[in-house]
Amino acid sequence: ARRHRIAVIPGDGIGKETVPEGLRVLDAAARRFGFELDLAHYDWSCETYAQTGRMMPEDGLDRLRESDSIFLGAVGWPGVPDHVSLWGLLIPIRRVFDQYVNLRPCRLLPGARTPLADRTPAEIDFYVVRENTEGEYSSSGGRMFAGTEREFVTQDAVFTRVGVDRVLKYAFDLAMTRPRKKLTSATKSNGITFTMPYWDERFAEMAKRYPEVKTDQFHIDILCAHFVQHPDWFDVVVGSNLFGDILSDLGPAVAGSIGIAPSANINPEKKHPSMFEPVHGSAPDIAGKWICNPIGQIWSGAMMLEHLGEKDAADAILKAIEDLLAEGGPRTRDMGGNAGTVDVGKALAEAV
Amino acid sequence: ARRHRIAVIPGDGIGKETVPEGLRVLDAAARRFGFELDLAHYDWSCETYAQTGRMMPEDGLDRLRESDSIFLGAVGWPGVPDHVSLWGLLIPIRRVFDQYVNLRPCRLLPGARTPLADRTPAEIDFYVVRENTEGEYSSSGGRMFAGTEREFVTQDAVFTRVGVDRVLKYAFDLAMTRPRKKLTSATKSNGITFTMPYWDERFAEMAKRYPEVKTDQFHIDILCAHFVQHPDWFDVVVGSNLFGDILSDLGPAVAGSIGIAPSANINPEKKHPSMFEPVHGSAPDIAGKWICNPIGQIWSGAMMLEHLGEKDAADAILKAIEDLLAEGGPRTRDMGGNAGTVDVGKALAEAV
Ligand SMILES: CC(C)[C@H](C(=O)O)[C@@H](O)C(=O)O
Ligand SMILES: CC(C)[C@H](C(=O)O)[C@@H](O)C(=O)O
Repeated sequence: ARRHRIAVIPGDGIGKETVPEGLRVLDAAARRFGFELDLAHYDWSCETYAQTGRMMPEDGLDRLRESDSIFLGAVGWPGVPDHVSLWGLLIPIRRVFDQYVNLRPCRLLPGARTPLADRTPAEIDFYVVRENTEGEYSSSGGRMFAGTEREFVTQDAVFTRVGVDRVLKYAFDLAMTRPRKKLTSATKSNGITFTMPYWDERFAEMAKRYPEVKTDQFHIDILCAHFVQHPDWFDVVVGSNLFGDILSDLGPAVAGSIGIAPSANINPEKKHPSMFEPVHGSAPDIAGKWICNPIGQIWSGAMMLEHLGEKDAADAILKAIEDLLAEGGPRTRDMGGNAGTVDVGKALAEAV
Repeated sequence: ARRHRIAVIPGDGIGKETVPEGLRVLDAAARRFGFELDLAHYDWSCETYAQTGRMMPEDGLDRLRESDSIFLGAVGWPGVPDHVSLWGLLIPIRRVFDQYVNLRPCRLLPGARTPLADRTPAEIDFYVVRENTEGEYSSSGGRMFAGTEREFVTQDAVFTRVGVDRVLKYAFDLAMTRPRKKLTSATKSNGITFTMPYWDERFAEMAKRYPEVKTDQFHIDILCAHFVQHPDWFDVVVGSNLFGDILSDLGPAVAGSIGIAPSANINPEKKHPSMFEPVHGSAPDIAGKWICNPIGQIWSGAMMLEHLGEKDAADAILKAIEDLLAEGGPRTRDMGGNAGTVDVGKALAEAV
């Protein structure tokens, strides 16, 4: 049978509750579609940090390197600053494994509630492709004249040809697989006049290689407005690290799916493991109550299976989620029901 | 009588249609409230650029310097690149006159249509305060290894203590004038780890001076999501140049007012003239047809009068806009009517 090695990191807060349900559904899919999952469990989290002073052991990345994919819950907990928790676990995984594509579907699922008036599922169905290793998230910068009136801080946004071209290529390739074949680029070249015109230049260059793809571009300010006013305009949207971050929260918000949206951190060449995690965080306010919604985790599992070549299994999970929402299956509180985390996981595992 | 010197720059496209209506209403307000407006007209635009190679004459800024305020239509036209049109007129005015606050109200007006379901006017009524001179819109950066595989481009975001503190102070002062006294800061200190933690640090420092103001902060990604999901949470929102730019398009989009939203570029100390302009652009697709909506321009005029100390006149204009929308007065096409630009201007001038 086909075997896939999965590193499992529940992380913090509700990650500990959603990951078991994600695994439950993955396991059901493995049995039905005839593949095997080798799981390696890692309890790295803010608790690990409290005990050891590190979010993961020194050889943490080496251990992960042996897996085909990483299945992550959530990272972060009150009391541990983000630069420790995120920059000690999430960000190094993205960077060291060169997961240069962050892919997030934005879909209005049947039966889900969008804050927008009068929108149907067919009208909100697009992907955000985010650059995930460079751009505005840079480690170059600093502070001068600290503590005086002249104090200033800088941070360099860095856009490399290699970094920009490869994520654009991924986005064009993805657009080619979609019926509408449309790609929108997020820019701000009218205000940010070095890096963004460069992004536009590379986008125009790459577009020449894909004559079948219909392209357009908007400045990020009006693009955000269009997400709210015209979500039906979009098919695939590509943006820098920061712009992609913004759009991939706004898109799910518009689709009413921010609590259940999945995300994939992909190394498309499969030289390194890719990582799959829900968009939501560790949710300290509801953690420990087993009332959180596991759908984001389970949907992330479907994206993982698709990446591993198990397309039929991925489709089956997605269909189970759609059916559950459309047919009034068990729902957690955030979706107006009163089911527990485990109820939803079990219902989906059974459906698969 | 009180006299105010106004420099008038219609600029490009529909700016030439909205500015006359803005002036019509300002004139009505002046007569009713007993002040005088000295107008100086400047036809600087992309046409000027075509004729002279410059967006404005060399002594353009000096001429503007003599006015109390600048009343601007729109800048930009197809065929003239943004770095010429915007950086030859709009951006230098903002910077040279140290208009370090960009203030934009986000209000759901009675009778206006929001894309959100079930929102009432009382629920969407907040201000975005945007830093307008530094931050991500920087002139520091460049390109290296051009034309090779090693090519990269950088742009430094620059946050100075002076620049950050003064816009934060403005935002806290504004929050103090509002019944809810609430201020939200836009950050991204979990990803942009030099400049954004500095912004947070200065925000926390300034907050100590305003114990009555309730503060919170969100990362820009989830903040954009909250604008869509919970616009009622916000009272005053402060952000950097880029974040403020994004939020002040998203806010009006959520309120259904992007076609009519005003903006003020303010030098709070009144050492230099401030500038008032609608959020919309020059709209080449409908320019020349006299069907565009002048409300953004007229509302910008109201903000200008408030800045000039004519609060009663400003309130009268705003009330006229509210009444026109609520009572089904003449509407342009974008609001579902078939009135012309001039019809709306005349109706508002009469109401004032
Ligand atoms: C035209 C552009 C440079 C400008 C900006 O980003 O400042 C515009 O979007 C605005 O918000 O006034
Ligand atoms: C937690 C944070 C650093 C992260 C990011 O901005 O990349 C998150 O918002 C995300 O989108 O995965």
